[in-house]
Amino acid sequence: MTTPTTLPADVARDLEEFSIEVPSWGYGNSGTRFKVFGTPGTPRDPFEKIADAAQTHAFTGSAPRVSLHYPWDKVEDFGALREFAEEQGMTLGMINSNTFQDDEYKFGSLTHGDKTVRRRAIDHHLECLDVMRATGSHELKIWLADGTNYAGQDSIRARQDHLAESLAEIYQGLGEGERIVLEYKFFEPAFYHTDVPDWGTSLLHCLALGEQAQVVLDTGHHAPGTNIEFIVAQLLRQNRLGAFDFNSRNYADDDLIVGAADPFQLFRILFEIVQQDAHRPAAGVNFMLDQCHNLESKIQGQIRSVLNVQETLAKTLLVDREALADAQERHDVLEANTILMDAFWTDVRPALAAFREERGLPADPFEAFRASGYEDKVAAERVGGNQMGWGA
Amino acid sequence: MTTPTTLPADVARDLEEFSIEVPSWGYGNSGTRFKVFGTPGTPRDPFEKIADAAQTHAFTGSAPRVSLHYPWDKVEDFGALREFAEEQGMTLGMINSNTFQDDEYKFGSLTHGDKTVRRRAIDHHLECLDVMRATGSHELKIWLADGTNYAGQDSIRARQDHLAESLAEIYQGLGEGERIVLEYKFFEPAFYHTDVPDWGTSLLHCLALGEQAQVVLDTGHHAPGTNIEFIVAQLLRQNRLGAFDFNSRNYADDDLIVGAADPFQLFRILFEIVQQDAHRPAAGVNFMLDQCHNLESKIQGQIRSVLNVQETLAKTLLVDREALADAQERHDVLEANTILMDAFWTDVRPALAAFREERGLPADPFEAFRASGYEDKVAAERVGGNQMGWGA
Amino acid sequence: MTTPTTLPADVARDLEEFSIEVPSWGYGNSGTRFKVFGTPGTPRDPFEKIADAAQTHAFTGSAPRVSLHYPWDKVEDFGALREFAEEQGMTLGMINSNTFQDDEYKFGSLTHGDKTVRRRAIDHHLECLDVMRATGSHELKIWLADGTNYAGQDSIRARQDHLAESLAEIYQGLGEGERIVLEYKFFEPAFYHTDVPDWGTSLLHCLALGEQAQVVLDTGHHAPGTNIEFIVAQLLRQNRLGAFDFNSRNYADDDLIVGAADPFQLFRILFEIVQQDAHRPAAGVNFMLDQCHNLESKIQGQIRSVLNVQETLAKTLLVDREALADAQERHDVLEANTILMDAFWTDVRPALAAFREERGLPADPFEAFRASGYEDKVAAERVGGNQMGWGA
Amino acid sequence: MTTPTTLPADVARDLEEFSIEVPSWGYGNSGTRFKVFGTPGTPRDPFEKIADAAQTHAFTGSAPRVSLHYPWDKVEDFGALREFAEEQGMTLGMINSNTFQDDEYKFGSLTHGDKTVRRRAIDHHLECLDVMRATGSHELKIWLADGTNYAGQDSIRARQDHLAESLAEIYQGLGEGERIVLEYKFFEPAFYHTDVPDWGTSLLHCLALGEQAQVVLDTGHHAPGTNIEFIVAQLLRQNRLGAFDFNSRNYADDDLIVGAADPFQLFRILFEIVQQDAHRPAAGVNFMLDQCHNLESKIQGQIRSVLNVQETLAKTLLVDREALADAQERHDVLEANTILMDAFWTDVRPALAAFREERGLPADPFEAFRASGYEDKVAAERVGGNQMGWGA
Repeated sequence: MTTPTTLPADVARDLEEFSIEVPSWGYGNSGTRFKVFGTPGTPRDPFEKIADAAQTHAFTGSAPRVSLHYPWDKVEDFGALREFAEEQGMTLGMINSNTFQDDEYKFGSLTHGDKTVRRRAIDHHLECLDVMRATGSHELKIWLADGTNYAGQDSIRARQDHLAESLAEIYQGLGEGERIVLEYKFFEPAFYHTDVPDWGTSLLHCLALGEQAQVVLDTGHHAPGTNIEFIVAQLLRQNRLGAFDFNSRNYADDDLIVGAADPFQLFRILFEIVQQDAHRPAAGVNFMLDQCHNLESKIQGQIRSVLNVQETLAKTLLVDREALADAQERHDVLEANTILMDAFWTDVRPALAAFREERGLPADPFEAFRASGYEDKVAAERVGGNQMGWGA
Repeated sequence: MTTPTTLPADVARDLEEFSIEVPSWGYGNSGTRFKVFGTPGTPRDPFEKIADAAQTHAFTGSAPRVSLHYPWDKVEDFGALREFAEEQGMTLGMINSNTFQDDEYKFGSLTHGDKTVRRRAIDHHLECLDVMRATGSHELKIWLADGTNYAGQDSIRARQDHLAESLAEIYQGLGEGERIVLEYKFFEPAFYHTDVPDWGTSLLHCLALGEQAQVVLDTGHHAPGTNIEFIVAQLLRQNRLGAFDFNSRNYADDDLIVGAADPFQLFRILFEIVQQDAHRPAAGVNFMLDQCHNLESKIQGQIRSVLNVQETLAKTLLVDREALADAQERHDVLEANTILMDAFWTDVRPALAAFREERGLPADPFEAFRASGYEDKVAAERVGGNQMGWGA
Repeated sequence: MTTPTTLPADVARDLEEFSIEVPSWGYGNSGTRFKVFGTPGTPRDPFEKIADAAQTHAFTGSAPRVSLHYPWDKVEDFGALREFAEEQGMTLGMINSNTFQDDEYKFGSLTHGDKTVRRRAIDHHLECLDVMRATGSHELKIWLADGTNYAGQDSIRARQDHLAESLAEIYQGLGEGERIVLEYKFFEPAFYHTDVPDWGTSLLHCLALGEQAQVVLDTGHHAPGTNIEFIVAQLLRQNRLGAFDFNSRNYADDDLIVGAADPFQLFRILFEIVQQDAHRPAAGVNFMLDQCHNLESKIQGQIRSVLNVQETLAKTLLVDREALADAQERHDVLEANTILMDAFWTDVRPALAAFREERGLPADPFEAFRASGYEDKVAAERVGGNQMGWGA
Repeated sequence: MTTPTTLPADVARDLEEFSIEVPSWGYGNSGTRFKVFGTPGTPRDPFEKIADAAQTHAFTGSAPRVSLHYPWDKVEDFGALREFAEEQGMTLGMINSNTFQDDEYKFGSLTHGDKTVRRRAIDHHLECLDVMRATGSHELKIWLADGTNYAGQDSIRARQDHLAESLAEIYQGLGEGERIVLEYKFFEPAFYHTDVPDWGTSLLHCLALGEQAQVVLDTGHHAPGTNIEFIVAQLLRQNRLGAFDFNSRNYADDDLIVGAADPFQLFRILFEIVQQDAHRPAAGVNFMLDQCHNLESKIQGQIRSVLNVQETLAKTLLVDREALADAQERHDVLEANTILMDAFWTDVRPALAAFREERGLPADPFEAFRASGYEDKVAAERVGGNQMGWGA
């Protein structure tokens, strides 16, 4: 394929309709167990986070929603937060619950052996549903840090049963048009087992709950070597892929910029998605960034991430699917692979620049934002107060 | 726990009822892509394999069934094979299909894009059902080497759909009291994707088929770091663990002697099993060895494997479950772990020796077999002919 | 092997001479990037840490040294700290430097591209040498969190050169009888590369420095599947194993109780050590715990860890090495493996209990400590102040 | 970077000088332990393999050497084979020894406990040196399948000592201008340990031998997650990277087409190489394909592999290294990463097509070969005889 200067009309339409949700916590500080490095200009409250998120959207045109984390993003008046977001051209997206930072949850939350603790965790999720409604969202994301550190510490089986019961009660709280998505995660540092380690476990709980429960796949939450695009295809085949968390990892749950570690993996994943038309809004998959920024500039990191997804999606949309199907049918392994790789190696950046300029956006959002002076401005303005990070 | 000299009565009863199926192919030659090393005395036909398998049972008293692999174990008269087995005190167990060694299956079998190839693969499985009936078995094990080597080579999604259709047709062939078990496998050398890579995929197909379809878990078929005992607990919770393949691995699908690489993992897995009473015959889980022997003596390797399972099962049955539940409830992490480890470190070998002697079995089956002269005898007798191995 | 009631004299002597160094930070709070759970009674200063460490020794008789972390364990008068330790029957062990928690080190320390930062990091290490002398220690342990998060972020090669220069300057500061040990680590969360990722890199730097530089192997710092006992054997063959950090991991650098995740791995590692007599003090390997405790009781966790090492070491010393060598020579794979496993499965706890009682120690140090009332006492006494953790 | 239509002169020069050695065994059949699929036209003797290898060179202009495997490629008259190669425009490259397919080597070769077996293995290598001279080569590649399957099977330490002695004797056989390269490999299926598992071990043996011994790095021979470009940088820093084996893997030692599984990894590796000018002939690194083809067309697979390396190398040569160094110095993490990625995403295929046409080569060697009719021709001609594969 020669380098295209413009995108085909159908590709342009798909890209126009495709949007990415950004995480409020991606604009706060984060780090490792050793050290969280602060940066001048880091938001000190949820309003400032949303203001920063709005920059990502302003420059890319593709990130119009921001996920909230509760209670990290707790404010007195969620209506006011929603209005503020709308003034910035943003809507509020998924609500993320948090049952991993209170002393009560030291040994689990929705899976805890003690009914009182489960009650507390269930109530927290019901409260999240209230926040969801107050913010105009209709989705609650459940990620649990539940698990054990040592064999024998607790009963794997009993915890599954507790989880099923807890989820059922939360599910009862859903109204029409609302849904929960349940995230799985292969491991946490120091863990022996996690209570929702894989897509199979998440899906089984969703199947038991009903149609308003779906799986959320986070690219960073798998065993080494896992073929993630296979899982995407399988969940789509079951109509149960509710949300997709973009990020990138080399070793652990690294939450690096999506596409940074393995851009070809991102391409293969997105290709499974477009093959089942799941990139279209009608499919109901919420595509999100779930990543944070330790060393790099946060807003720049978010913009780069949106661009990485957008460029890669464009590549997958350019795959000659007819020729591919034909080569597959003939079992011409190398021709089929060549057709796929041809799209991967095609440089879509010039055509995307044109696409943006036609829509009044900067040709290169990353450079444009860097040149905008926003970072200096907020660094100068945001003096005093406590910078937000995980847990604050 | 002090070293017990006898087993508690309930433990003894459980061990007495517990049995392990052995694989006919474990008595033939095997190797790597580089080299298959032959050994004097290796069986040259299925009858000799069964004779060797019968040794494993004669010395351990716990391995009364032998799995067949079709067509590796094809004989003219399966009734005669069955009678021969019964004369040796054995019954014939699961029938294992084979769709990975014919040129037609180069690009897949039950998942193949071409209807003719799928037809052939389905027919092979229906033929296996006939063999199953002829041998007095009621279980068909399906393990597929289907998959692709390169991204783009074929459609992941289409292959799932083909697989579902093919399995449905095989399932239609089942009579009452018969079942199929579907094995999953994380990877094959040179593969990009396998069509049944994980327990979730296998379970989804089984759920779609019906109650007579269950999952088979092979300990060697997971990503590095996978918590296998969690999967065991989950499949038992769904009543879908049909069979369990014992073996051991360090890196790949190594098919080493069970317990060789990580004896504590075997203990944790068996503890999940006994906690749900799944070691009892009533649970309907077929426990099998699925391993082969490259460097070590084959019959000795099988006997050692049976002993490893038996010893470890005894340890799990000795766990003080009441004390454990109590420590778990108090979240006394270290006490709970200590209670579990106490059973692991208990030396059950003297009590098992007594258990065997009471039943007319040698105290140490491994040494007794080595001293029996059987290996020399068959090495002398089995001269000429072709030694059996994979594919022969 | 029947369960021994007493240890052979040579094994008892070896165990008597063998000692384990404990980490001061193992007695403080630790956790994950999400949450550090505090516990009543947690030390509020280095003196209290040493008091707790002394408990580990008092009950096990095998943990007479405590490693310090600088500046976590900074006190005004290190001489006073040393005296305090000696009053408790302890000596101060390795000094651990820290260049991973200051803003200056955000992009590296000894490997940093900027000379000023490297200067600061080198000076910190020279200061550590002063602390080392003030505490009566003669060993400095260097573990670096240096590395990058993204490809292209910095020059891998240049950083190696910087590291070599920085280490050379620190090495110049060593006096006779002093040494540095350089730790390697496969990954850090969010990293793309670490500057000392493997034993080969650590060893190359040590070889370039001279005889007073040695490698420290931490069991938790390897890629999945790495055969750690091979590395032990190789480093001993080069006379460059300076220190050995015990801990346990399932997935990441989990710092769990040694032997918790894979007790057979610990056995294999220690067997390589005893085969080269490296467990003896004369070999100069400093055996240490490097682990921390998130959920479990800290002192109990340390005591359990010491016991796990001691029991496993006893097992390796009981291996019938003559019989093993003979089976190996005959390539009797299964007999050789059986001889090794016989020692692994032997229950050494009764004999160790006797060994302890003969020496005026409790037969079961873990239970004895739990019954001692020490934890309640310090929880009652240590009210107010700031509990110590990583970074404090 | 806009898509270049021609390559800068210095890049073109570097590409012109850069060459890749192809493996004779890549033109024969290969497979897994289950099945080797044959293909019409597969070579039946070493001459036919070389004829096929010459096709790779004829169409790409970059693969003028072919490695031999001994005794797989044993012929009566190596002088005749050499002449035949030269007539085809090829030279004969590295000689690969083989000590993994004879019954004598079941338990090891150069590491074997039995002197007689070691003698045989050493003599085989000395014979390889003769073959090397007869073919005009000056390099011997040693890859060993030595190791054990079970803990305790043999002494890890003793095997290292044997290996050192055996290598020393082979090394004595080297003349001036000749060298040996020693390959390492993380694992073999069914292994518990390999005797040369990592670059550190290989390098230590080379350092002990002398300047004419160097390490060969095979991209498929590492633990999951290993940062291979780091190892490249480290070995180049030690002047000990003798050869580099290209291939690709998802899980095991898959020997897939280089760049197929992770094209960005290939880019990062080659970027470390060009940063140290090691792609230039003067650096003395022998770049080779070490891969085989199970499902795909063999010659096409080799051509695609050469193109993948060539395209990726061109990308790394286009990195704006001055701008990168500047961004690195300013610790502008995202700008540095962006500069690197800019080169990765640049489509070099049009410029490479022009580069080839200027040199009388087809613009698209892959398509040109497919259209050439060669495969049909040899399929028609090569009837009868035994197709060559591993071991034949």
